[in-house]
Amino acid sequence: MRIMRAAFASRFDADNPLAALTVGEQPEPAHPEDDWVTVQVRASSINHHDLWSLRGIGLGADRLPMILGCDAVGTAPDGTDVVVFPLVVDPGDPRGMSILSEHFPGTFAERVAVPRMNLLPLPAGLSATDAACLPTAWLTAWRMLTTKGRVDEADAVLVQGAGGGVATAAVALAVALGKRVYATSRDAGKRERIAQLGATALEPGARLPERVDVVIETVGEATFDHSLKSAAPMARIVVSGATAGHEPKVNLRRVFAMQLEILGTSMGTPGELTELLTFCAEHEVRPVVDSVVPFGRIEEAFARLHSGAAFGKIVIDHTA
Amino acid sequence: MRIMRAAFASRFDADNPLAALTVGEQPEPAHPEDDWVTVQVRASSINHHDLWSLRGIGLGADRLPMILGCDAVGTAPDGTDVVVFPLVVDPGDPRGMSILSEHFPGTFAERVAVPRMNLLPLPAGLSATDAACLPTAWLTAWRMLTTKGRVDEADAVLVQGAGGGVATAAVALAVALGKRVYATSRDAGKRERIAQLGATALEPGARLPERVDVVIETVGEATFDHSLKSAAPMARIVVSGATAGHEPKVNLRRVFAMQLEILGTSMGTPGELTELLTFCAEHEVRPVVDSVVPFGRIEEAFARLHSGAAFGKIVIDHTA
Repeated sequence: MRIMRAAFASRFDADNPLAALTVGEQPEPAHPEDDWVTVQVRASSINHHDLWSLRGIGLGADRLPMILGCDAVGTAPDGTDVVVFPLVVDPGDPRGMSILSEHFPGTFAERVAVPRMNLLPLPAGLSATDAACLPTAWLTAWRMLTTKGRVDEADAVLVQGAGGGVATAAVALAVALGKRVYATSRDAGKRERIAQLGATALEPGARLPERVDVVIETVGEATFDHSLKSAAPMARIVVSGATAGHEPKVNLRRVFAMQLEILGTSMGTPGELTELLTFCAEHEVRPVVDSVVPFGRIEEAFARLHSGAAFGKIVIDHTA
Repeated sequence: MRIMRAAFASRFDADNPLAALTVGEQPEPAHPEDDWVTVQVRASSINHHDLWSLRGIGLGADRLPMILGCDAVGTAPDGTDVVVFPLVVDPGDPRGMSILSEHFPGTFAERVAVPRMNLLPLPAGLSATDAACLPTAWLTAWRMLTTKGRVDEADAVLVQGAGGGVATAAVALAVALGKRVYATSRDAGKRERIAQLGATALEPGARLPERVDVVIETVGEATFDHSLKSAAPMARIVVSGATAGHEPKVNLRRVFAMQLEILGTSMGTPGELTELLTFCAEHEVRPVVDSVVPFGRIEEAFARLHSGAAFGKIVIDHTA
């Protein structure tokens, strides 16, 4: 059995997830089926999903040790550059599928194994580190705006808590799609970055100059009522996460009187990822990158994400 | 000015809405525009909306006295039998329209004025008292199941609190559409009635034998968590009311992990009402009628709805 370097959850720590992270040697992942291939990872990026796994949310103790990481860009066995679609069919999961690092080993390693059909070509003009932002956070934001939010029918979009990977992706994509974009952050520095992306930056809870047709919600309790109040009749409040409280009280009277839609979503499809890759390449949209960390110092990436200070994606360079 | 008998809100009473109801004389409604007509009301039906109005919810004090009632079947000026579509364009309302009894006088009267385009022909074979159930509660249920719930893609439907007009309509319509239908009620007698409609009757909170694709929610806090837990991946929880608490805590983690949709809706369109009238006539579906009360004793209809004892619609016969 070949051995490789990897960053993995060796145990759970609900209070201090960073303490549950181990960087060390792990066996190279096996191929559960004949159609799986091994990709040499060139770049990955970190998501809140990785911190939740270290807390023991969404990952069972029977799965430990588990290599973390959902996103990867790498080199396929035939030598081509590929972007890895991170969802794998998983009959044992109630959703019918799981994301890399939930059941099958993740991408924070020298190599990752996935079904061959999960490999998408890296478009010309996109760097490996940029493309490593796309398969999870940016894909989630793309699906939130397009398939779920029906942004083509929208004039204005509100993005709550615009600092995280999904939220900054939603800001950049909605601006690129030509929408009027409002985005909130508690942090003055992040509001400045939001404005640089072409959106109107607001403090949390601020009254918008207009009601919006799409709200991008990844915050939860702290912002949910403001999301409902900012919504135009028939608006879509699209929810893919809840970093600040996952059980908001929801005013159903407003939901039915205004005919609002609260749409849960998670990740996206291979077709949506292909659309996103094409959109970024053709419109020269580049991911909002907070920082690029060498794989040898991946603990720093976890610490920065956990600190809440990041604006945009934290990328791991596996070639550095 | 002609005078007529009517049931109207003369004041508000948040605790005892029945005390705010007056039956007496009111001026015959005017025609705000040339294209309005006056319909001689033959049958109407009562909705929770009428009780909310008496509590002062959704109706401003500046609108008093206000004739209540949303539903009407009657005789048009040309002598034909018509069903009245109850939504009227209302530029002064944030929704762009209002329902009869919110701004324009309602149907609990000898006569009601509406735009001519709001008149739909009464299909052959439907009685006036049956058809009087359709324009509000049954229309709401029809839109919840079809346009919002996409019931054509569903195998199983859960209806919460199946005693009220919308919920019993949803049970009857979903059964007629060939779906497996589960419906909850706290009341053993109502569960018996649910079973007679062809659904599987359950106590509130009971574990279903399968996850459902569509949930019909008109209850709110008391049932909302059960609605989420009973939902299959990608299910639609359609909400048109909240008779038992309008601010439930909503588990967003479940909403996004299962990609659930919480869809607020209110009433429907003239096209949907036409579909519903045709469906009921062609499939010989008849509304679930709790009781028919003569207009002269309309206070009894309000009291019965307020008691919570009704199963199905309470109809008012204006010809009795």
